[in-house]
Amino acid sequence: MSSEQARLEWLRSFLNGGPREGVSLGVGDDAAVVRARDGESLVCTVDAQVEGVHFHRAWLTWEEMGFRATMAAASDLAAMGARPFCMLAALTLPKNVDDQQFQALVRGQKRAADELDASIVGGNLSGGTELSIATTWMGRTMRPVGRAGARPGDLLQVAGTIGAAHVGLSALRGERHDAVLEPAVSSWKVPRARVLDGLRMSPSAHAAIDLSDGLAIDVERLAKASGVRAVLHERDLEREAAPLRAASDLLGFQAQDAVCFGGEDYALLVSTPHPIQGFRTIGYVQEGSGVCVDRGGALEPLVARGFDHFVP
Amino acid sequence: MSSEQARLEWLRSFLNGGPREGVSLGVGDDAAVVRARDGESLVCTVDAQVEGVHFHRAWLTWEEMGFRATMAAASDLAAMGARPFCMLAALTLPKNVDDQQFQALVRGQKRAADELDASIVGGNLSGGTELSIATTWMGRTMRPVGRAGARPGDLLQVAGTIGAAHVGLSALRGERHDAVLEPAVSSWKVPRARVLDGLRMSPSAHAAIDLSDGLAIDVERLAKASGVRAVLHERDLEREAAPLRAASDLLGFQAQDAVCFGGEDYALLVSTPHPIQGFRTIGYVQEGSGVCVDRGGALEPLVARGFDHFVP
Repeated sequence: MSSEQARLEWLRSFLNGGPREGVSLGVGDDAAVVRARDGESLVCTVDAQVEGVHFHRAWLTWEEMGFRATMAAASDLAAMGARPFCMLAALTLPKNVDDQQFQALVRGQKRAADELDASIVGGNLSGGTELSIATTWMGRTMRPVGRAGARPGDLLQVAGTIGAAHVGLSALRGERHDAVLEPAVSSWKVPRARVLDGLRMSPSAHAAIDLSDGLAIDVERLAKASGVRAVLHERDLEREAAPLRAASDLLGFQAQDAVCFGGEDYALLVSTPHPIQGFRTIGYVQEGSGVCVDRGGALEPLVARGFDHFVP
Repeated sequence: MSSEQARLEWLRSFLNGGPREGVSLGVGDDAAVVRARDGESLVCTVDAQVEGVHFHRAWLTWEEMGFRATMAAASDLAAMGARPFCMLAALTLPKNVDDQQFQALVRGQKRAADELDASIVGGNLSGGTELSIATTWMGRTMRPVGRAGARPGDLLQVAGTIGAAHVGLSALRGERHDAVLEPAVSSWKVPRARVLDGLRMSPSAHAAIDLSDGLAIDVERLAKASGVRAVLHERDLEREAAPLRAASDLLGFQAQDAVCFGGEDYALLVSTPHPIQGFRTIGYVQEGSGVCVDRGGALEPLVARGFDHFVP
């Protein structure tokens, strides 16, 4: 099959299933044709996963590779309170990727899209020396939630585990194998876009962001965009860190560092006037700027303790 | 500036100009928010340009690189009869791309989007070893034109030059410099998405495709999708080849081969019941399958004469 033409034909038959609401024309023409419902906004985002930068082949099956790239990209829709609608993927495939691997990768993308009740409507295949997956998602919502609306007095709440993906990634990087590390490794390998939490927060949250680069960086982005100060409660950080303690000890770092500075969890962080079902409080918003930790009433700036960025 | 964060901030201020119709939220949040007008369909497509596969740095300025990738991707919108609306780009930038080069590349993307009266609403920056630009376009149209509607009795018509980009690419690959080659080299370097021709054909054309992989391959796709035979008139192919004669002679191939088998022209091919203003007739549609050439009444299959694909 390995010619580009044969792969395109396989994609056409594999991806064009039954009719989907809102999709008039799927894979196989010059472009896809879709329609939003009246009154809905469209939410668009693109994210790329590049071999050697974001992952290594040895860490993931080919299906996990496709699933992970697709879910990670969809997380930005969840953070806007949008429902996934349709997806396009540009694959750069080196010559050493065979047909079985290619198909498994696409099956992983399809499984993620199916799980999100959305369609893959287009894509592009290219040669290259470096495997990469650039995923474009479109979602729909009546009320998009940006980063910029947080107000003093809001609660900061999270949905989804924080820090586990970093622990899992550290285990993969260090080639450490232990039963106590397995849940964290799975968190990194098989992320989930928190679409249902996004829909739940969308009617009432003032601002939202997904935790892709780590709590400290992402809450700082939300605070900066909103012109406020974010305060994290130390007791809440401790609560988040507790389940990671054993694995972190094994790997030689503080669980709370993983919570504050680890990325790729794709948890949702919201700033909300009232508690939201399924979310846990992690702090609050006040006038000011920057990110602080409330240690029993005393505010200290949250400072990154030299956590190195992911360099594979 | 060269940290990713600094580049993202530059992008935010460079790309978020004044308000644009239909764009509620541009670059800088988790995702962009846009709205189609009631009754319009959205047309979505993604295309990637990878260094060493689609271009070499030596062939293009950085601004041309961004412009070309953006225009080439938009050509699929033109082929659907859609008006460009908004664009997202995923850039993979090796460490040896400096800030000036990065900014020039983005300026080229912006210039192309401005020329198409559309907005860049999002994107992604990643490291990597291989420079690549994956461009997602969304367009809007009341009447999308696919590949599958051609009917026996239709005229085949084209808008835009055919074959010149291949001549230009051959000159670049062979490092040939001559005044007679310059227009063709420019055709390859600075393509134009034929949006106005697309809007002109959209109300009446039965089917359309853009010529990215070459007339022979693309007209075959249209014929196959429509379940018809495409017949090209030899006298029309000769007319298309005439302006390329001198340059082709210099490079040692037949001008008509460049017309039939050269790609990357981004001309539009339509199947239409009536002539369309600005389009030139190149053949007709009849019952059957495949692609033939009408040589004074006798039909011969159009056979690729071993034109090699672009291997840089």
